[in-house]
Amino acid sequence: MRFIDKLLNMSRQNSSLLCIGLDPDPELMPGRDVVQFNRAIIEATGDLVCAYKPNLAFYEALGSAGLSILEETVKHIPGDVPVIADAKRGDIANTAKAYARALFSVFGFDAATVSPYLGHDSIEPFVGYRDKGVFILCRTSNRGARDFQDLRTDGQPLYEIVARKAGEWDVHGNIGLVVGATYPEELKKVRSMCPEMCLLIPGIGTQGGDLASAVRYGVDARGERAIFNVSRQILYASKGEDFAGVARETADRIRRQINSHLTR
Amino acid sequence: MRFIDKLLNMSRQNSSLLCIGLDPDPELMPGRDVVQFNRAIIEATGDLVCAYKPNLAFYEALGSAGLSILEETVKHIPGDVPVIADAKRGDIANTAKAYARALFSVFGFDAATVSPYLGHDSIEPFVGYRDKGVFILCRTSNRGARDFQDLRTDGQPLYEIVARKAGEWDVHGNIGLVVGATYPEELKKVRSMCPEMCLLIPGIGTQGGDLASAVRYGVDARGERAIFNVSRQILYASKGEDFAGVARETADRIRRQINSHLTR
Repeated sequence: MRFIDKLLNMSRQNSSLLCIGLDPDPELMPGRDVVQFNRAIIEATGDLVCAYKPNLAFYEALGSAGLSILEETVKHIPGDVPVIADAKRGDIANTAKAYARALFSVFGFDAATVSPYLGHDSIEPFVGYRDKGVFILCRTSNRGARDFQDLRTDGQPLYEIVARKAGEWDVHGNIGLVVGATYPEELKKVRSMCPEMCLLIPGIGTQGGDLASAVRYGVDARGERAIFNVSRQILYASKGEDFAGVARETADRIRRQINSHLTR
Repeated sequence: MRFIDKLLNMSRQNSSLLCIGLDPDPELMPGRDVVQFNRAIIEATGDLVCAYKPNLAFYEALGSAGLSILEETVKHIPGDVPVIADAKRGDIANTAKAYARALFSVFGFDAATVSPYLGHDSIEPFVGYRDKGVFILCRTSNRGARDFQDLRTDGQPLYEIVARKAGEWDVHGNIGLVVGATYPEELKKVRSMCPEMCLLIPGIGTQGGDLASAVRYGVDARGERAIFNVSRQILYASKGEDFAGVARETADRIRRQINSHLTR
């Protein structure tokens, strides 16, 4: 099944545009077993999300055992829930092939995030997996996003040029874009340029982006094809033994808040 | 010891600006154990290089065992030879911290490559490890490098703006740049902008960049601070049982070729 279909199915089934970022930070979950922690979060929230998104940095920081922990985590996610590898990979053709194989064939993710800096041949090997989703970093949610993404060529900022190129490269209909909720005007612009594209939108939780404008500007004309990611605000809503239950309550509250801003 | 000192020590000791990319590709080394393969390469070439550079993609493509294989590989590299993690990571601040911790504290690499697309706060956590080297992608060696890296803002292409910013951000003297040998004019330009910076230069082997101009344009005024990486051309020079010996011969030939273009 194509990524977009898997995503829309789950999004409709759970009435949810919420994605939970499975980003285990040992400092915020002292003494807990990461696989058990993730499993508890997944079991508590599986009917409230449209996708899960582990960021590989947090698994690599666990050392050589980290990728096994990631693999174990993915096994606990029900097969009909899309899993996005937040990897932000980008390398030259031969090496990009190895990354794509790692994320899609070996680890079995449904989608991955990639960086555009190296251009088309760094992204093509990912796009070649037609059933997988490929989210190209466009306008990121962080402060430093301005350093290069706003640089203008013939009046057009780099992130818009990336969005336009992504559209040209999207020959199989499996490319999406990452656009942070922390920059609502830029999000609005990207959505207007790419009305049909799936957008992965971080930045509405701890990062503090405005939810109402992120939803209004981020979704497509049917109120879909937008994935709002929240990680820390849900995972660490409680540091006590009730963490999974409180994560569920928090996730459901955010899911409903997102839906309340939809005007379908 | 600071990365640059470790690099210069080894470069002088071995009279070498050659870095070998430890990029195991199962298709090119059928049936071989990766750790044993890498170990044989390292033992055969340790006195001919200034550094080793494993690209993480090839280890991740080996699945969850991949990072253990990488860890084992690094253990076989003598402690005085710098090891550069070719990871091309780039993520928002909180996550960049996890990547920096993974590469520098957990895996113990001496340096890492990072992508500039997310701006300063994505690179700062790496730079904060003052003894480690941080190579920012500037002008990459691939065809697609032109897609975004050549876009001009006020007449200046993006890769030059990245080089300039890298200079501004280099408060601890541990930032370097990645510039492909396949674009000699761009390499010349970057060297003229950053006369003191360490440059990591891929693209002289299988990728076909011209060696003479790469060396002439890449080194600093003393004929140093340039790292020429070759991977496949050395690793797979022979597919027979003599692979390590042939790798040594090939590495030594390239080392001497590089040196022959130096005009110290």
